[in-house]
Amino acid sequence: MALIVQKFGGTSVGTVERIEQVAEKVKKFREGGDDIVVVVSAMSGETNRLIELAKQVSDQPVPRELDVMISTGEQVTIALLTMALIKRGVPAVSYTGNQVRILTDSAHNKARILQIDDQKLRADLKEGRVVVVAGFQGVDEHGNITTLGRGGSDTTGVALAAALKAEECQIYTDVDGVYTTDPRVVPQAQRLEKITFEEMLEMASLGSKVLQIRSVEFAGKYNVPLRVLHSFQEGPGTLITIDEEESMEQPIISGIAFNRDEAKLTIRGVPDIPGVAFKILGPVSAANIEVDMIVQNVAHDNTTDFTFTVHRNDYQSAQQVLENTARELGAREVVGDTKITKVSIVGVGMRSHAGVASRMFEALAKENINIQMISTSEIKVSVVIEEKYLELAVRALHTAFELDAPARQAD
Amino acid sequence: MALIVQKFGGTSVGTVERIEQVAEKVKKFREGGDDIVVVVSAMSGETNRLIELAKQVSDQPVPRELDVMISTGEQVTIALLTMALIKRGVPAVSYTGNQVRILTDSAHNKARILQIDDQKLRADLKEGRVVVVAGFQGVDEHGNITTLGRGGSDTTGVALAAALKAEECQIYTDVDGVYTTDPRVVPQAQRLEKITFEEMLEMASLGSKVLQIRSVEFAGKYNVPLRVLHSFQEGPGTLITIDEEESMEQPIISGIAFNRDEAKLTIRGVPDIPGVAFKILGPVSAANIEVDMIVQNVAHDNTTDFTFTVHRNDYQSAQQVLENTARELGAREVVGDTKITKVSIVGVGMRSHAGVASRMFEALAKENINIQMISTSEIKVSVVIEEKYLELAVRALHTAFELDAPARQAD
Repeated sequence: MALIVQKFGGTSVGTVERIEQVAEKVKKFREGGDDIVVVVSAMSGETNRLIELAKQVSDQPVPRELDVMISTGEQVTIALLTMALIKRGVPAVSYTGNQVRILTDSAHNKARILQIDDQKLRADLKEGRVVVVAGFQGVDEHGNITTLGRGGSDTTGVALAAALKAEECQIYTDVDGVYTTDPRVVPQAQRLEKITFEEMLEMASLGSKVLQIRSVEFAGKYNVPLRVLHSFQEGPGTLITIDEEESMEQPIISGIAFNRDEAKLTIRGVPDIPGVAFKILGPVSAANIEVDMIVQNVAHDNTTDFTFTVHRNDYQSAQQVLENTARELGAREVVGDTKITKVSIVGVGMRSHAGVASRMFEALAKENINIQMISTSEIKVSVVIEEKYLELAVRALHTAFELDAPARQAD
Repeated sequence: MALIVQKFGGTSVGTVERIEQVAEKVKKFREGGDDIVVVVSAMSGETNRLIELAKQVSDQPVPRELDVMISTGEQVTIALLTMALIKRGVPAVSYTGNQVRILTDSAHNKARILQIDDQKLRADLKEGRVVVVAGFQGVDEHGNITTLGRGGSDTTGVALAAALKAEECQIYTDVDGVYTTDPRVVPQAQRLEKITFEEMLEMASLGSKVLQIRSVEFAGKYNVPLRVLHSFQEGPGTLITIDEEESMEQPIISGIAFNRDEAKLTIRGVPDIPGVAFKILGPVSAANIEVDMIVQNVAHDNTTDFTFTVHRNDYQSAQQVLENTARELGAREVVGDTKITKVSIVGVGMRSHAGVASRMFEALAKENINIQMISTSEIKVSVVIEEKYLELAVRALHTAFELDAPARQAD
């Protein structure tokens, strides 16, 4: 008999009918003998409705009061799901974040979980009850209601699984798992049986938006096995877990991620002196612009070129900031390009395999795709290429790293 | 500088525009120098919407979970009103029943307030904040969310006023006060400046549905002056308070109440022996039928007649119960009438004035209205008459007790 935490998002509980379906699903698991803690989001659209209502009163609603309001969304769902379970003869009880209690800091609208009191939950589980907990919300040390920010329900699930030392935290979504790449680009893309936390982080931040990055980090930190599953289809989903010994036998590359939303900016002929990177990026971050890739190559003639990528929405303002910096530093020029895309291969296997990067470059070269920037980490190689080559590049890499194979076995 | 508790019901906060109006009103009071605690209900329609949602899941929603759901209605309103106040530069903070904390028993959907922790509230008031509290809800000793039942927001207001020893609990409604009788029946009906708790109880239970009976009882018990006011019109409203010394100078009768929803049942020729009243009413109350007036006159020939009134909806079932009882007791017959109405004169003044009842009977006799039943209490005389005479009787009594006079002064 295992303890499982199951998290159902807004679309999974978007109507009374879907809540009934979730109750059926939970009932089956419970009848299988497992102890179940369910975390639910607000019914889809509800959080936005509440925010709209708040905005009718104030353009910038007071964060503390906004939390009081929007936390009601999950509170309604936990009650409905608990009623649906009890109707089916499954003993169940609901808890708000405050009731659990999920202690957070006081950063309203984006609070972080500090501690979870598992006493009540354990007592209920012992009595055979399914415990239904409101995701996305907590309470600070002064008793103020807090919310964790968008997608916070995943984090609640993981935090509860960690606190209760659950066997698994199952995240139910509208996809049946994590894929080697976007199936809309590569029809041969396959569902992964397993992926490591680190790989998932790289995949998620690169655009495979299945899970909130924060919840994956959290799961990795506390070593909570995460499973991504489809809410209303049967199937094993994808298990996200630690890098096990058998990883040597795993494929070198787990997946190909890409991001269409980036733009690149280069400042040319910057004096090659200490502190210049900060002088360039300081004003950018002061303007609240997030920077993704940063590449600086070795200097020649005592000057260097410095390139980074930003979200396309920030391209204009980043360019203005950079023009100022260029004048101050006496740099030669600022050039940029919005018609680019970033493609990355991700896999813990590359740690122990030489030549992964060159295999990537070879595959791209074969298709005559020019590489504009390269950046690498322990488990990832990213390249920036011309936007029009995106699909071609992803498909070529998917084949080159043998991800197209008809079926992969779970270990 | 006084401490005032102000309660705004569902229609007063039914839209964002109305919430803004309430905020303006509260702001003015605050600027007048008073400390303000505001109690609000859910936006009108919201509680029903939530109950409907619950009923889609279960015909008989689990009471604990229903409370978790419907308590969100007030939680949204407190946040919106607090935002509206802060937008106007009025420092304010919201609290749910759990946050205050308003401790209740565990009778979900109809909980009773046991205790209120005033620490947080006093600290906020001291800091100059307006405190906005969710009406209708509390928390039991185990941390379960409870609700007080319909109209519970009035009770929350009174309980807070009692706990904080507030100068006054102001109940804002859609009427500008308590009237001598229903103005739709008697156009000359007048707003009362003052009325006692006892009178208000008699008026309320007799059909002048301005305040929840429970909140009036509560206010009387803790001697919290209650004031009924119109949410969006200026005016002093009606103050409900204890019976003061000056009551000798008050009019004998404060108002005329009536109830159109009653029916009467008589069991004739009942053996006049001890315990017979219980034998008749026991089965009636066992059938969950509430009885209002009960009249039994002196016996003759060792039998007596026993008459009581019930809500018209209960007439059929009460009649069946009574037929059975009549057979068992060997009573002569059961007769009944649904075309009746109850008219009452209410006033603490009648305690010290002889002849009030006879003045009432005289006024009715003048109009040739036959009295079918009479029942009296310390501050009330009720008669049952034929339904068709209702308006005539109320107008005659209103005039006879000099309630038509053009204006009454507040003391």
